[in-house]
Amino acid sequence: MKHTISVLVENKFGVLARVAGLFSAKGYNIDSLSVGETNDPTVSRMTIVVNGDDAILEQIVKQLRRLIDVIKVVDLTQANFIDRELVLIKVNAEPSTRSDLFSLVGIFRGKIVDVSPKSYTIEVTGGRDKLDALIELLTPFGIKEIARTGKVAMARGA
Amino acid sequence: MKHTISVLVENKFGVLARVAGLFSAKGYNIDSLSVGETNDPTVSRMTIVVNGDDAILEQIVKQLRRLIDVIKVVDLTQANFIDRELVLIKVNAEPSTRSDLFSLVGIFRGKIVDVSPKSYTIEVTGGRDKLDALIELLTPFGIKEIARTGKVAMARGA
Repeated sequence: MKHTISVLVENKFGVLARVAGLFSAKGYNIDSLSVGETNDPTVSRMTIVVNGDDAILEQIVKQLRRLIDVIKVVDLTQANFIDRELVLIKVNAEPSTRSDLFSLVGIFRGKIVDVSPKSYTIEVTGGRDKLDALIELLTPFGIKEIARTGKVAMARGA
Repeated sequence: MKHTISVLVENKFGVLARVAGLFSAKGYNIDSLSVGETNDPTVSRMTIVVNGDDAILEQIVKQLRRLIDVIKVVDLTQANFIDRELVLIKVNAEPSTRSDLFSLVGIFRGKIVDVSPKSYTIEVTGGRDKLDALIELLTPFGIKEIARTGKVAMARGA
């Protein structure tokens, strides 16, 4: 089962390597990971998406909690949470397909963030399924490059 | 100097730990890191933002290129690139400040993605400076939680 784990850590070197090392020691590949600052500059938040056996992941969460510089670990999987991801997609610019491309970007509430004679770069945010759907629909236009942030997540409500 | 490094890697376990380990071995803390899939499911892209001495970072880039499962490393710092980040911000909901909050979100082209009796959750994307500015302006409303993806970046043009 896919788990979304939120980890608050001290913003110190070595923490990321230790956290990533815990997963790879169990042979688990991280699907996506993002690390960014919080409102406290000494604290960073990691959001980790990983697919695997529930019991083993529960064990990994317990081990994470014991790591130095790890402040808090929450497995959001059972909670009601919001998750969002950002993707930049560079596609071929062809005068003949431009209007189709623009309407697709509009439907997905994306933005064109860069234009060159040969390419458009689109920014779009949303849940994983939405981004996957857009990428699939853009494929016939010719995708040159994709950069996804990996998702961030937060429990709903107060 | 702040460097933005884009790394294409095989989507295998252990790669993230090795990449993160290279930076921590030099005593370098990663400011932000995001890992997400590309249009090839066997390949992931990492975007790493790190602050440090240019010569040492050049050395780290060379070492990265030599790692198993690392396909391509580009230091975008000298290039003309687009970078974007997504942030979720949960703030206190007070009837008295609601209209100020909504107009601030509108100015920054953010979206309210969750509402509870005690909080609003805002999604906004942009460059680092824009997100920092919004976070600063939201601080007086009472920020409960922040989750930033860390930035993704892509060279401009074709």
